[in-house]
Amino acid sequence: MKLKEFQQILKINKIDYALLFNHPNKIDPNFQYFSGINSIFACLAIPQQGKPKLFASIIETDIAKKNSTIKDVITITKDLYEQIRKNFKGKQIGLNYNYISLNGIKRLKKEFKGSTFVDISKSLEVLRITKTKKEIEYTKKSCTIISNILTDTIKNFKKFKTEIDVREYVEAKIKKLNLELSFPVIVASGPNSKNPHHFPVNQKLKGFTILDMGVKYKGYCSDISRTIYVGKPSKHEIETYNLVLNTQLECINKIPKLSPAELHDLALNKLGKHFIHALGHGTGIEIHEPPGITFKSKDKLKEGMIITIEPGYYNKFGIRIEDDILITKKGYETLTNVNKELIII
Amino acid sequence: MKLKEFQQILKINKIDYALLFNHPNKIDPNFQYFSGINSIFACLAIPQQGKPKLFASIIETDIAKKNSTIKDVITITKDLYEQIRKNFKGKQIGLNYNYISLNGIKRLKKEFKGSTFVDISKSLEVLRITKTKKEIEYTKKSCTIISNILTDTIKNFKKFKTEIDVREYVEAKIKKLNLELSFPVIVASGPNSKNPHHFPVNQKLKGFTILDMGVKYKGYCSDISRTIYVGKPSKHEIETYNLVLNTQLECINKIPKLSPAELHDLALNKLGKHFIHALGHGTGIEIHEPPGITFKSKDKLKEGMIITIEPGYYNKFGIRIEDDILITKKGYETLTNVNKELIII
Repeated sequence: MKLKEFQQILKINKIDYALLFNHPNKIDPNFQYFSGINSIFACLAIPQQGKPKLFASIIETDIAKKNSTIKDVITITKDLYEQIRKNFKGKQIGLNYNYISLNGIKRLKKEFKGSTFVDISKSLEVLRITKTKKEIEYTKKSCTIISNILTDTIKNFKKFKTEIDVREYVEAKIKKLNLELSFPVIVASGPNSKNPHHFPVNQKLKGFTILDMGVKYKGYCSDISRTIYVGKPSKHEIETYNLVLNTQLECINKIPKLSPAELHDLALNKLGKHFIHALGHGTGIEIHEPPGITFKSKDKLKEGMIITIEPGYYNKFGIRIEDDILITKKGYETLTNVNKELIII
Repeated sequence: MKLKEFQQILKINKIDYALLFNHPNKIDPNFQYFSGINSIFACLAIPQQGKPKLFASIIETDIAKKNSTIKDVITITKDLYEQIRKNFKGKQIGLNYNYISLNGIKRLKKEFKGSTFVDISKSLEVLRITKTKKEIEYTKKSCTIISNILTDTIKNFKKFKTEIDVREYVEAKIKKLNLELSFPVIVASGPNSKNPHHFPVNQKLKGFTILDMGVKYKGYCSDISRTIYVGKPSKHEIETYNLVLNTQLECINKIPKLSPAELHDLALNKLGKHFIHALGHGTGIEIHEPPGITFKSKDKLKEGMIITIEPGYYNKFGIRIEDDILITKKGYETLTNVNKELIII
């Protein structure tokens, strides 16, 4: 995405070129950020000046050519490192130190004798923490799609008997659009709702039922939660729901004046010890990425960031309400759009 | 799996305890090997003596308790590292240097001041390269399931018009069994068959059509390929198919006398430059794991290894025939079981 800005960073730091590696089991989101793909084993080399090149194995060259935004794809022959050395000059190499393993660096030191390595992880984080127009466009689309799917799912809720029924309905909708999930769909009903990352089972739908889902559109994640009620809620349950909802609305309303840590504290003050996870997180290529919206976060909210605000309450039952929010020049824009009043089925 | 053997290795190497980390985006298969799960962020601590403990976040503790083979699950409170230091004594800590990143080790050095770190990646590879009875049992089941699905798919082949039709049929079958794929199903027909990792598109089925698929059963992967023909093959096409098939049969027949590198050479001699990938690979928790069955491999075949043998031919069309093979005391046992004669639809 921000290739020119990244090359400017390389120049300022006197880094001749950066190498980003990716493996299907060990995904570097920064590789995806610049190449548009993440499913293959490959190495992306980005020089301080000029065009990046993507090195892929012979059996994945075609996929890389077809799906990557990098047009210069080179097939790895016997020795990837020799090919890199031939194509790129300079002794100062940027690497993502959050990704390169201890054995990986040993190998790289041997292959690039006399070179020095520089950590670019922090620079990449700073680049990616605010989104480009394109990234915002993709995330908006992603949020619209999942909002429509969730609205439709709630509308059809009487059809479903178990958590798995709901999950299958949502997954089929997403599959029909030929899109990927951002994460496995969460449907947590009755006693299961108190477990924030519950995986759907054959639990009969009853009481508070948390629905948490997202899709990837052109690689960009959406993430939304709503909690509906199956049956007849007690007064205490309705009050608790409204407490969570008001907390969410109040937190969103304080964007971007309060910092992430202050927002988290605000929610914690209102919800108390039954609020057991972070208030939110950045989203983008990764479902969870900076900035963290938690008591530990040192970030400030800036124009172009996209975050979730998802206060939750987990005791004998669970409630979570989550939206995706873009920080704008004037304040904020809510990207997800699904009714938030308590729906009773 | 081989917990006692691993603890013995820790003892011999004077390692007080080992730490294995996992993240959904950055999977350490060794974490899964000992814990039975891989989808969460967590840390597994294995002492030289006594029981391992799994540290998981509050929102994933329940999942860890339910799905892991490790029964001692501790919820991470504010400081994971302090919790580890409290629970485990000793200054010599084993880490998987293939996994721990450069920034990861910086953090660990700060958190475990005065400790020394030892790379356990090679020991883990040696442990996992031969399979236990349980692992063999799971892989056999996985191979039986995918063989049945592939046989059924071929039987129903007249139903399908495009690559995507076939992929959807296979995926639905796997989903019905509540199993995961080992990797995205490959259906590569006509001109697409020359691309070994082709991702199915709306290509009309014609000519050679490679089907390559696998499931995970209790975490253990199967991996099988067959190539069938839609239409009327030419004499050259039939001859080429039989060349690939005979190469595969001959390679399997030489197990375990020939080494992986020698087996690869044997296939290369028979198929020539149109054989463009490795002859095979180990399978287990990972779809590709040691031993490599390639010209570079320095391994020898040993009882308890499970490997694929998958010679391929890629020119104007592609052909690949792949089975999963267990190395036994007496020789070998083929775990996948689907007709290999050329099927013409």
